[in-house]
Amino acid sequence: MSKDDFVKEITNIEDDFAKWFTDIVIKAELADYTEVKGFIAYRPYGYAMWENIQKYADNEFKKKGVENIALPMLMPEHYLTTEKEHVEGFAPEVAWVTHGGGKELEERLYIRPTSEPLFCRMYAKWLKSWRDLPMKYNQWCNVLRWEKETRPILRSREFYWQEGHTIHSTEKEAREMTLEMLDVYADVIENLLAIPVIKGRKTESEKFAGAVDTYTVETLMHDGRAIQAGTSHYLGQNFTKPFGVKFQNKDGKEEFAYHTSWGISTRLIGAMIMAHGDNRGLKVPPKLAPIQAVIVPIQMQKTGVMEKVNEIYDSLKDKIRIKVDDRDQYSPGYKYNDWEMRGVPVRIEIGPRDIENNKCVIVRRDTLEKQECVLNELEDKLEKLMIEIQQNMYNMCMENVKNKTTIAINMEEFEKNINEHQGFIKAMWCGDAECEEHIHNVTGAKSRCIPFKEEKNISDVCVVCGKKAKNMVIWGRQY
Amino acid sequence: MSKDDFVKEITNIEDDFAKWFTDIVIKAELADYTEVKGFIAYRPYGYAMWENIQKYADNEFKKKGVENIALPMLMPEHYLTTEKEHVEGFAPEVAWVTHGGGKELEERLYIRPTSEPLFCRMYAKWLKSWRDLPMKYNQWCNVLRWEKETRPILRSREFYWQEGHTIHSTEKEAREMTLEMLDVYADVIENLLAIPVIKGRKTESEKFAGAVDTYTVETLMHDGRAIQAGTSHYLGQNFTKPFGVKFQNKDGKEEFAYHTSWGISTRLIGAMIMAHGDNRGLKVPPKLAPIQAVIVPIQMQKTGVMEKVNEIYDSLKDKIRIKVDDRDQYSPGYKYNDWEMRGVPVRIEIGPRDIENNKCVIVRRDTLEKQECVLNELEDKLEKLMIEIQQNMYNMCMENVKNKTTIAINMEEFEKNINEHQGFIKAMWCGDAECEEHIHNVTGAKSRCIPFKEEKNISDVCVVCGKKAKNMVIWGRQY
Repeated sequence: MSKDDFVKEITNIEDDFAKWFTDIVIKAELADYTEVKGFIAYRPYGYAMWENIQKYADNEFKKKGVENIALPMLMPEHYLTTEKEHVEGFAPEVAWVTHGGGKELEERLYIRPTSEPLFCRMYAKWLKSWRDLPMKYNQWCNVLRWEKETRPILRSREFYWQEGHTIHSTEKEAREMTLEMLDVYADVIENLLAIPVIKGRKTESEKFAGAVDTYTVETLMHDGRAIQAGTSHYLGQNFTKPFGVKFQNKDGKEEFAYHTSWGISTRLIGAMIMAHGDNRGLKVPPKLAPIQAVIVPIQMQKTGVMEKVNEIYDSLKDKIRIKVDDRDQYSPGYKYNDWEMRGVPVRIEIGPRDIENNKCVIVRRDTLEKQECVLNELEDKLEKLMIEIQQNMYNMCMENVKNKTTIAINMEEFEKNINEHQGFIKAMWCGDAECEEHIHNVTGAKSRCIPFKEEKNISDVCVVCGKKAKNMVIWGRQY
Repeated sequence: MSKDDFVKEITNIEDDFAKWFTDIVIKAELADYTEVKGFIAYRPYGYAMWENIQKYADNEFKKKGVENIALPMLMPEHYLTTEKEHVEGFAPEVAWVTHGGGKELEERLYIRPTSEPLFCRMYAKWLKSWRDLPMKYNQWCNVLRWEKETRPILRSREFYWQEGHTIHSTEKEAREMTLEMLDVYADVIENLLAIPVIKGRKTESEKFAGAVDTYTVETLMHDGRAIQAGTSHYLGQNFTKPFGVKFQNKDGKEEFAYHTSWGISTRLIGAMIMAHGDNRGLKVPPKLAPIQAVIVPIQMQKTGVMEKVNEIYDSLKDKIRIKVDDRDQYSPGYKYNDWEMRGVPVRIEIGPRDIENNKCVIVRRDTLEKQECVLNELEDKLEKLMIEIQQNMYNMCMENVKNKTTIAINMEEFEKNINEHQGFIKAMWCGDAECEEHIHNVTGAKSRCIPFKEEKNISDVCVVCGKKAKNMVIWGRQY
């Protein structure tokens, strides 16, 4: 099989981005379909990425004083209906357990789509006095949302995430926590996944069902569509009041706690694929990569080759996540394509002639650049390359964002820009939900966020209605 | 509140062990009830123990070449009914999802009680040739079994566990894997939880629904009842045949894979509580303990006390999991009781006079022994103490097993022994399920296992029927 034949198995990225994405997920063995629509199986390579995200994020959470707990996956129906906006937002998407242990249940139970009601119910039990506050709890768990349209990793019915819920004695402190966690998410996405983010606040129409304010980190994919990569909500007392989360404050008076919630999910793996990938397949940033370097031996049956390869492997295996591809049923050429497709940041080729000359060939996945390396410099070289590739992937992604971010001062420009290269569109907005709706109907774009860094000099008037503008909004079509 | 008042809140361990257990779970803030029967909430202190078990076990699994994956929590009804013994074992205990996204489902879905069918279904998709074998996958997840009688941590409807499922090209290799994983479990339970285990094989009546052979690690609690702490199953081709998990072997012929599965769960936390606890509360082995040492400052408002305490804390916090109890609403005496109840292995008391003399007082939770320690020797002292306490807790537990293990050569002895001090009873057995049933009906004891180390010289005949004995069996009442 020639290089081109092998790559042909993946749909061309410019022809059909959605199909390209699914090809990568399946062929790089990140995940697979199961027989139930919308439920996928994570394979070792995909799940190891989630474990790396968990490790990194969990460590950051702990620095903020967050502790992990675990709450049940099932909640009684009346929890869902207690908060008005919450039930409207989630009721259509839940799955119902009606029978257990051979009997019909008296009250139906729903599988959590998110756990605000249950966190609040437990906080109500545990919270007594201002001395107990803040309480900063998080859980890593599975949730279920019965989506109509599904797509592996990016939008599956069951997915994995963390949901942090904190309660505080003042609005000020809770609002600060909301933004601190948004910063943690920006850190995870920019520094681990090498994807630049735009931080901002969601408009009224786009915020979480039950939130006072929703903050978001927005990212842009290779094809110019946006992904909301993480959200952090200031929930005020919207849930703590109906669920009775109250405490005795310093003045001895009863008060309802101020509440935040925030989450990132396995969607981040989908964003990573779509932000970095190319026609050869996946590109995994070194810090996230389950395999950071792969050694492909050449003429591995020749005396001394595997001995040398194993020696190199042994000397590196505690410093870097490295693998030897010693499969004897495939040619080196096949393996090169295979590991490029799987997005391993660095490939090391070593054959008898290299060994004679005490060197090897290194190929970077991000640039496909080939270079020779003296064997006793390999460790240093790899260490430097990991940093370089991580940075370069971020830069390439930022380049894409810059190229695909435009300004629109009227709807004609808006439509022209979004049809030409999708991307982020910066445009002024009057604050009216009808104008937002109009943009969505005409262009398919939604408001991504009101960015923290607003550029108010774009125009004085709303891009839709021409009335006085209130905010600059970033718009885009989304996944 | 005096020391005795405080301890009175916990039921006496000799009066009502079950109530004592529940008191500990709730008052030490390991977990709490939710409003749905059989579903509990793990609080930070309890969940941190599970995280420590996960970390330790996961690391051991990886040494055996096991990789983590994640499969859906829901399976279609026909998966449950495919393997005959499996459906009989689990159908009465499952919860059914009948509606999703506002519609009744065409085929009901069940929440996993265990995932043999789904692992096999996916293995059938992924396995092609002998070159792909072995495949050794594991998942850390929640499962649900609709138990009639529930008890927090020990027997809840939803619980957390890992389920490893491996497939192999030969029976020999699969059987070896089954026993290797049993050894890993013995390691986790003995070395992390400080609980001695007996390794053995389950009898026909007690094995897993669908297994060829079930192996177990059995433990004994403070009150003499047994807990099955982990099981490892050799499943042969019982699942791989009906689910079509086949491969082309080296001779080019199709063959069904040989399958193992093995699991440990949050029950281990229950076993740890019941194996080690006493009338003062919990005793957590140092290796497992989320907090290994707690500093209780005395006269903390006095100048210099908190400065010194924080200085000590800072010098130790990277070496040991340590906490300062600086709550100003409680007396030192209250705090002593509180941390004893929570089972923290070592308490450090420091007051103004200690600081003057450059020392502190150390109290071990396992022996309640008090000793003085010069401050600049504290780090060394704590390091040694952690090892000593871990070992001593194991020894104390082993002492309990020895004291409560007896031999019975007839039913009169059997009944007398089990009624006197419960415990493990060693007795010979003919191999007939009816005799096993008889013992259960008469004494409430079940066969725990046929231990790997059988002592065949106890008697030549079955303890029940007097016919020729086949095996020595360890019997006991169980949780």
